[in-house]
Amino acid sequence: MKMQLSFLSTCPVVESASSPQASCEGLYFGDGRRKIDYVLVFNHRRHSSIRSASASVSRAELSVVSNGNFPPTARSDAATGRGQPASVGEVFMELGNARGGEPMEVADQEMQLIRQEFEANLLDAGLEIERDREVKAHGLSFTRIHAPWPVLCREAEFLKVKVPTKTVIKETGFGSRLSSVWRKLNQPFQPKVFHQDHGSTKFLSHYTHTHTHTHTHTHTHTHTHTHTHTHTHTHILTTMQNVKQHKPGFAVMTVVLYFHRKYFGEKVGLYFAWLGVYTQLLIPASIVGIIVFGYGVATVDTNVPSLEMCDDRLNFTMCPLCDGACDYWHLSNACGTARASHLFDNPATVFFAIFMSLWAVLFLEHWKRRQISLSFSWDLTGIEDDEVNTQNTSGVEVGVANRSKIFVKLTWKDRLPGYLVNISSILFMFGLTCSAVFSVIIYRITISALMAMNPDPEIKSNVRVTVTATAVIINLVVILILDEIYGYVALRLTELEIPKTETDYEERLILKAFLLKFMNAYAPIFYVAFFKGRFAGRPGSYTYVFNNYRMEECAPGGCLIELCIQLSIIMLGKQLIQNNIFEIGIPKLKKLFRSLRDKKSTPKERDEEKPHQWNLDYALAPFEGLTPEYMEMIIQFGFVSLFVASFPLAPLFALLNNVIEIRLDAKKFVTELRRPVAVRAKDIGIWYNILSGMGKLSVIINAFVISFTSDFVPRLVYQYMFSPTGTMDGFINHTLSYFNVSEFKPGKAPLNSQAGDITFCRYKDYREPPWSSDSYQFSKQYWCVLSARLAFVILFQNLVMFLSLMVAWVIPDVPKTIVEQLKREKKLLVNLFLQEEKEKFQLIQSFFVKDATLHEAYQLHSVEKQ
Amino acid sequence: MKMQLSFLSTCPVVESASSPQASCEGLYFGDGRRKIDYVLVFNHRRHSSIRSASASVSRAELSVVSNGNFPPTARSDAATGRGQPASVGEVFMELGNARGGEPMEVADQEMQLIRQEFEANLLDAGLEIERDREVKAHGLSFTRIHAPWPVLCREAEFLKVKVPTKTVIKETGFGSRLSSVWRKLNQPFQPKVFHQDHGSTKFLSHYTHTHTHTHTHTHTHTHTHTHTHTHTHTHILTTMQNVKQHKPGFAVMTVVLYFHRKYFGEKVGLYFAWLGVYTQLLIPASIVGIIVFGYGVATVDTNVPSLEMCDDRLNFTMCPLCDGACDYWHLSNACGTARASHLFDNPATVFFAIFMSLWAVLFLEHWKRRQISLSFSWDLTGIEDDEVNTQNTSGVEVGVANRSKIFVKLTWKDRLPGYLVNISSILFMFGLTCSAVFSVIIYRITISALMAMNPDPEIKSNVRVTVTATAVIINLVVILILDEIYGYVALRLTELEIPKTETDYEERLILKAFLLKFMNAYAPIFYVAFFKGRFAGRPGSYTYVFNNYRMEECAPGGCLIELCIQLSIIMLGKQLIQNNIFEIGIPKLKKLFRSLRDKKSTPKERDEEKPHQWNLDYALAPFEGLTPEYMEMIIQFGFVSLFVASFPLAPLFALLNNVIEIRLDAKKFVTELRRPVAVRAKDIGIWYNILSGMGKLSVIINAFVISFTSDFVPRLVYQYMFSPTGTMDGFINHTLSYFNVSEFKPGKAPLNSQAGDITFCRYKDYREPPWSSDSYQFSKQYWCVLSARLAFVILFQNLVMFLSLMVAWVIPDVPKTIVEQLKREKKLLVNLFLQEEKEKFQLIQSFFVKDATLHEAYQLHSVEKQ
Repeated sequence: MKMQLSFLSTCPVVESASSPQASCEGLYFGDGRRKIDYVLVFNHRRHSSIRSASASVSRAELSVVSNGNFPPTARSDAATGRGQPASVGEVFMELGNARGGEPMEVADQEMQLIRQEFEANLLDAGLEIERDREVKAHGLSFTRIHAPWPVLCREAEFLKVKVPTKTVIKETGFGSRLSSVWRKLNQPFQPKVFHQDHGSTKFLSHYTHTHTHTHTHTHTHTHTHTHTHTHTHTHILTTMQNVKQHKPGFAVMTVVLYFHRKYFGEKVGLYFAWLGVYTQLLIPASIVGIIVFGYGVATVDTNVPSLEMCDDRLNFTMCPLCDGACDYWHLSNACGTARASHLFDNPATVFFAIFMSLWAVLFLEHWKRRQISLSFSWDLTGIEDDEVNTQNTSGVEVGVANRSKIFVKLTWKDRLPGYLVNISSILFMFGLTCSAVFSVIIYRITISALMAMNPDPEIKSNVRVTVTATAVIINLVVILILDEIYGYVALRLTELEIPKTETDYEERLILKAFLLKFMNAYAPIFYVAFFKGRFAGRPGSYTYVFNNYRMEECAPGGCLIELCIQLSIIMLGKQLIQNNIFEIGIPKLKKLFRSLRDKKSTPKERDEEKPHQWNLDYALAPFEGLTPEYMEMIIQFGFVSLFVASFPLAPLFALLNNVIEIRLDAKKFVTELRRPVAVRAKDIGIWYNILSGMGKLSVIINAFVISFTSDFVPRLVYQYMFSPTGTMDGFINHTLSYFNVSEFKPGKAPLNSQAGDITFCRYKDYREPPWSSDSYQFSKQYWCVLSARLAFVILFQNLVMFLSLMVAWVIPDVPKTIVEQLKREKKLLVNLFLQEEKEKFQLIQSFFVKDATLHEAYQLHSVEKQ
Repeated sequence: MKMQLSFLSTCPVVESASSPQASCEGLYFGDGRRKIDYVLVFNHRRHSSIRSASASVSRAELSVVSNGNFPPTARSDAATGRGQPASVGEVFMELGNARGGEPMEVADQEMQLIRQEFEANLLDAGLEIERDREVKAHGLSFTRIHAPWPVLCREAEFLKVKVPTKTVIKETGFGSRLSSVWRKLNQPFQPKVFHQDHGSTKFLSHYTHTHTHTHTHTHTHTHTHTHTHTHTHTHILTTMQNVKQHKPGFAVMTVVLYFHRKYFGEKVGLYFAWLGVYTQLLIPASIVGIIVFGYGVATVDTNVPSLEMCDDRLNFTMCPLCDGACDYWHLSNACGTARASHLFDNPATVFFAIFMSLWAVLFLEHWKRRQISLSFSWDLTGIEDDEVNTQNTSGVEVGVANRSKIFVKLTWKDRLPGYLVNISSILFMFGLTCSAVFSVIIYRITISALMAMNPDPEIKSNVRVTVTATAVIINLVVILILDEIYGYVALRLTELEIPKTETDYEERLILKAFLLKFMNAYAPIFYVAFFKGRFAGRPGSYTYVFNNYRMEECAPGGCLIELCIQLSIIMLGKQLIQNNIFEIGIPKLKKLFRSLRDKKSTPKERDEEKPHQWNLDYALAPFEGLTPEYMEMIIQFGFVSLFVASFPLAPLFALLNNVIEIRLDAKKFVTELRRPVAVRAKDIGIWYNILSGMGKLSVIINAFVISFTSDFVPRLVYQYMFSPTGTMDGFINHTLSYFNVSEFKPGKAPLNSQAGDITFCRYKDYREPPWSSDSYQFSKQYWCVLSARLAFVILFQNLVMFLSLMVAWVIPDVPKTIVEQLKREKKLLVNLFLQEEKEKFQLIQSFFVKDATLHEAYQLHSVEKQ
């Protein structure tokens, strides 16, 4: 059980009494003077979970952290203490049971004790509380909290909250004009980004003091050995200009990055900033992708291999696709897939793969710069990990009868079982995913075989399309189901590890969830890209599954087209279903269910004439962290980068999804969820590492896709090594090996062949012909093409890695303007401090002088008197 | 022309007069009170170069920067102002002509003006100066400088020098005990490392103020359009315990890292720390290298391929090594090289290559940690780039008649010619290096051919050894000569670019010098590793150079043994010659020459009864930066990492060299060179990037060396694909192709063959036999082996890269102890500041109260009086 309190900005005591704003109404203590900063909710339900909610009113008058974009007039108002329209925001967090679903049956008596101890600790920390008259033991009861000004100041000092000083830095010049043009161009992708308006004016700010952040621990614990840490986080927020009251129906279009940061804290702000940068950079990627696809479309009619495949005159008789039931067939029947293949399998794709690998590096570098810019303009440059201090509490608190707190430091022996369970579970999940993929393969093989045996020619001709489509949909459904399961499994596994800090916990959870979900989403795609058709064997010596079904082969046009279908369906399906149904639909359902449940449990309260704001807000869904949002985007980033060589339109689909996603996310955060506790964060944490790892992985995967999945390398090899004319003519013939039909094993040859007198059938492989001394062995061409494929991988990988290093080296991490601005700020600060020190010194000195004069005068008087 | 002054610590004015120490004698102004901190030397010689020298006495009493390891007693001494034995150190720097060798003929009058202006600027900056009575216009004349206490304080504030506060952090526990054991084990490799004694005690330190560092620019300029920037750097040094007077003969063994840092500044300290870490980590690498070599020695007699090569019964008749003059020969003659090859070309080498790649990553990670530890214990955590501010002066000062300073900002048009010259010069140097390598190849080819034609069988049998040995020595000499030339070229090219800051200048210079020297040192090795023998052609169709000489082939035992010889001779030769002759011999010669010249030019001064300390110190060679020291070590790191697969003993030789090198460098720095200006540095700068780049390069190079230069992959392929028995038996036969001697072109067959009736001769290649339909084409085996080689490269590279990422990920950049200590320090500092603030507040408050009381009393008296 963990509980964190956040103190949001309050109206000063003296002032609020004289002019309570309309929006502040009802958000004061009974005396009408003290503002409610937080509301604790004690919900005595069956689960005995304690909920904390808070309503806070933030006003400009305090502006302790005003490092934002106040126009000068607002600033002076702030200095003189006169007000601006206040806005209301609520912070909700769960003081729930860390054990998750376990129902905890604690006696009411016990709960009351916990509550009393908890509230006593709050009072100890200097907070003031007010309770409702409690009518009944069960149901909701709210405790309002007011944080007095001195407490806020104390905590602000410890949090190193920066305060603005009087000097204003004004930025002008070509650079700022250029950037304003850029902003205008980008506006469609970042709707109404107010924070950019203040780009040219920035207040010099400094920490209130060079203090570290210390937590006030308020421990309560129960006999059931669960423990509660109450960390008193102070986060003071300033006026939220343009932000009206927090209520459903809030105009979505005014949701802005500045607002995100000010209202939700830096962590959420960073997420939206990251999403913005990513979406912006998807634009050039989409454009290049469309051009590459366009190149494929334009050249499909002049492409020799696909022309040859469609040419009836060449008349290649192919070996049957299944044993017995299938007949020999003509390659020209596969003309369609060959033409479709060319759309994605052409030289431009190679360029696009290189481009996208560099794009990924560029994106990461650009984000690094943006992050530093943001942490500069949000004045986060000096903050440290809040979490570091909680490390000391990383033991299990052992509940003892006399309620003294004993922490037991966990040794590796305590942790070992957890880790073992972890590793074995993850391996099991890997196995589960693989078997899911394998099941779908079996489905595909059996259904193909069964349908091929069907006498109806209509069904036969649609075999491949039907099977592929249904299989992919099954894959998608399996992925969606496993995704939810894996999310839950990752959560439970992380809890088993008993991580030391909140950050640690989050990182471990993310890493595990990512591993499982990544594998889940990509396993079928990996199979199609690198394994499908490689174990099929050859005519006369096929590989059989369950002694009966032949392993599946790729389409004659190459596996790339199948990869492309697989990728696009999974990507689009996952985005559509997860974004729309899971992200929007399910929360709405939950909300409905919760409000129904609460109505039932507290029928009396409903009868009151007007519900309090906190009652309304309590009805919203709790904020459950940014992990699902990031995860969704990172998996999408994988689709865009990992297999982009096979599907140049992926960035476009990602872009379209994200333009909607930003709006949906923003709307959800504002209207559907309780306001989360504002958390300060300097960066996006482990997500950056995951992104960077994916960027690295994408290089090698794209190299393999191009060289092994596509026909790019064999074509090059044919043209420059084997072609008698130096052109692509005869390529198809070159890629097909001969098989002597008399060598079919009994029962494997076509039973009802209509092809007539056939001695040799062809199959796609580089093997020695039947008349060679080492027949059906891999031919010299095979090894030659293999060498070329491998050489291409080495070349591609090292070239792209070198270019990536260059790109990362050329782009400085810290933007030049920031470096210069930091320098200027430092200079101004130095002057300011020197001035202040001087004044202080002069004040003391003047006292000394005055003291001496007075003393002298006094003595003089005394003397005179005598 | 650039000049930098550094103010070293001085005895406080009040105190030094009362107790001048023996070692301080003669280091005071005429009044015997003010200590000499700096000495400017004006040397009116032919070159008119102005030299600045300084003699400084550093004493414990001030200890403004005392963030080091004072025992508590020394600390209290420092606080009370009582002294410890002072030590003398001199800082020398050249106020020379930036244009290098250009003789500058400026009239004496002009020089006097410059000097006057310069000295006036020094006085402006608050310094006090004293001059000798100048007896003559030419020769040396010294101007002594004293930096008063307020000036030092002012500059210390701007430099953010940290001062110790009273709280002492004591570290105990298992960790510190363990590390002390480790230190003891390491002592032989880091002679007398005093700084480690203070590992368990550290003073809490803080900046004197959060000030940025600003430079005091003192501009002087001449009519010849050269410009002088005088940056007044303040660097205050504290007592150098255990360090006696700076003089030749200073005991080398007391040279320690702590001393290096305190006496030479952090930059030099970091170099020695880096060298220490590198040398320490060479120990495990050497041990593993010896074991790998031992494995080769132990298995040489059981290795099938070398046994087969030495087996006379197998009797392979090889094709002649040269046209006409050479006869057919038996493979068993090459038995020696085959056995030698096995020493370096065995499966253990593969393991060693992987090990060394990970070792390089480990080294970099370890150094990162060490750097952070050092910057913590040296209190550099908060310093910023000193250089950033000089950016504003990055124009060319245009000298105008009225002496006003006009800076012209250089545009890319001004810089373009410089860059173009740069690029073309570097390309030219690349060409030069390549042609040098090619010349040596030609030498080898022609001499081999000539010697082979010699009828003397004695000479014939020694052909290979003689030619290889002489060629490598020629290579070595060429490398050494070009190295010096390239160093000079890099310097001039960098000057052409007109870099903006000192750091920028240094980085560009280092990068260029590194590129040129790296290429120079490794070009012949690259040739042997990857190109030698690949263009030789085959019997009947050899490649000819100058229509006459056949391209050289590798020895029958493989190119690896030649690579090994090349590598070891260049590595050892370069180290021996450059370290001993260039680094030690030449400076000694220079010193001798300089003292002879100065004797001649200033005969009078020598007659004085006792030369001043500054006269003695001036005779030492000027300090020319750390670049040559780093460069030498980085090139050595290349030998250790890049081609380590071919020479497992390289780390051992590097280790032996470095153990000597540390001592020689230290001795040179203390006794042979003038004391450099102490420069603060947080890290080793661009060298880290170069090291990291080399680490990355080493992975791919080692992959290629193992797969293409060694016979590791062909052996594996033979054993698992072609061997009829599954063993290595028959491997040699498998690697040799057949040539029908009747197909020799006229005059190319052996003229005087004693081999008798021969139809086929053998040569090392995978080609179709003469009786095949496509005779002499690459065989299937060739492509098969090539595929395996390439697959090995991919596997090796990705495996090592993955492991490297893992290693880098597992090792945290900031050591845990440092994190914890920083946290504790912060906490203490917060308490301290809170306390101070409180006291200050109380003081002011008490004044207010007192003021009021006194005022009241006064008024009371006045009333009474009335």
